[in-house]
Amino acid sequence: MVDLKAVIARQSVRQFKVRRGGDDASLEDDVVATEEPLEIRLGYADAKGRRAERSISITMRTPGNDEELAVGFLYTEGIVRRREDVTVVRPCGPPAPNGLINVIRVELADGVAVELDRLERHFYTSSSCGVCGKASLDAVAVQGRFDLHPVATAIAGSILGDLPGKLVAEQSVFEQTGGLHASGLFDMQGRIVAAREDVGRHNALDKLIGSRFMQNALPLTEFGILVSGRASFELMQKAMVAGCPIVAAVGAPSSLAVELAEEFGMTLIGFLQQDRFNVYSRADRVR
Amino acid sequence: MVDLKAVIARQSVRQFKVRRGGDDASLEDDVVATEEPLEIRLGYADAKGRRAERSISITMRTPGNDEELAVGFLYTEGIVRRREDVTVVRPCGPPAPNGLINVIRVELADGVAVELDRLERHFYTSSSCGVCGKASLDAVAVQGRFDLHPVATAIAGSILGDLPGKLVAEQSVFEQTGGLHASGLFDMQGRIVAAREDVGRHNALDKLIGSRFMQNALPLTEFGILVSGRASFELMQKAMVAGCPIVAAVGAPSSLAVELAEEFGMTLIGFLQQDRFNVYSRADRVR
Repeated sequence: MVDLKAVIARQSVRQFKVRRGGDDASLEDDVVATEEPLEIRLGYADAKGRRAERSISITMRTPGNDEELAVGFLYTEGIVRRREDVTVVRPCGPPAPNGLINVIRVELADGVAVELDRLERHFYTSSSCGVCGKASLDAVAVQGRFDLHPVATAIAGSILGDLPGKLVAEQSVFEQTGGLHASGLFDMQGRIVAAREDVGRHNALDKLIGSRFMQNALPLTEFGILVSGRASFELMQKAMVAGCPIVAAVGAPSSLAVELAEEFGMTLIGFLQQDRFNVYSRADRVR
Repeated sequence: MVDLKAVIARQSVRQFKVRRGGDDASLEDDVVATEEPLEIRLGYADAKGRRAERSISITMRTPGNDEELAVGFLYTEGIVRRREDVTVVRPCGPPAPNGLINVIRVELADGVAVELDRLERHFYTSSSCGVCGKASLDAVAVQGRFDLHPVATAIAGSILGDLPGKLVAEQSVFEQTGGLHASGLFDMQGRIVAAREDVGRHNALDKLIGSRFMQNALPLTEFGILVSGRASFELMQKAMVAGCPIVAAVGAPSSLAVELAEEFGMTLIGFLQQDRFNVYSRADRVR
């Protein structure tokens, strides 16, 4: 059994009174996943070598692994590229009245050039064809660091079906109730080697990638990523930037997710269940 | 049966080759929900009365009801407030190579003041307590136009359980497979009076609210909103700005969604199924 007090203490869930409807109407205590804003601040040396600070983003997240979320976000957005670019990652007080520290400051080494323009998200429109899926893919290509087309990593199809159950087993009892999205990193023997959770799908994946970044363990060429929900363009983009050749989703993929996978040589698996799945691209990596 | 050719023609889905894994491995045609970027541009009169244009946002959406998505977004973000603020909403060519027009231009009447600062999202940090859930709620309070605390709208609990099935029935056969999120507007007799879909949860709700905006049929004081997924802070914020006193979600709510509902007098129902549901706030509206 999960230690609910411990989970509440780390503020990943909060307790509320809830009225249960239906046949067994009653008033009870219930817990829900915490959602609170997190501000990511970047410390860097400007063109004249003076230290500067800039607020980069505010995202609604579930508290926990905030440092990983911050660096994972900066990495998948193309702001930082190597472990040695980052010197310090730390919570930035004082705490809010609820006791949470909702600001993370990421300090870059002197000499690391910061492409803050990336954050303006103009990249969706940078192609000559205007605003369209193709332009979005072209923009991702600029970010791509790892050529995934030749990657020979492959997994047995018989192993895939067990992965969603293994990912759920990594989650706490509360989180198994469906309150949180999860992202898991799996190896080709079907082991979940790391898992992260959040109310936000993108945050869960940023935390996962950020954890590998902090360990200087990127790219993810030997691994696959499993996401608990659907596969969208943005999730595929993050996996691609992290050099991961296989993405599996419990839910449906979008058209642009499939197109991104095709363009960059990624294997995309959707509707993954115990006894069936669909492979939308590079099916040769599923034996 | 759905006319798949017609659905493909309007580009809300795209066809791909898929390899089915599992016991019945085979190569087949499959359709997935389209995801393509949409740029929202605002035309307005600047301080000197000259017409100006500004690109407001690029969102990944499923094509269809793009005009509603654009005005719904501008409304729930607090950029436009009344139907008469908007004179023209139109697709802005030329089409992308795939035939889609991915730009919508929203023309504001002369004399409508534009608070473009809102778009910078500083509002999360505008409170004296810094970055935290309370500050986010304070920022929403600024946006609030309708006091929902005294609203007497109420629904019979026995009606609630049928709503998710009715919302699914409004979706096409393809969309029932789980490719798209849905938002539905329901009345107190349990009828779904409008429904909209999108790969993005927020987009589906913006389309729904935008459709009512175009009909000059806001606020939604007499109605409830049903969302197919979870209830997050941002979805509750949009419903609150549209003056809707009841939000029901098929999935789990987040802590900040519950706190927003409590603060602004909204009824929040989660985990809505045929025979059971949880009410997290203002349970008096569920009889």
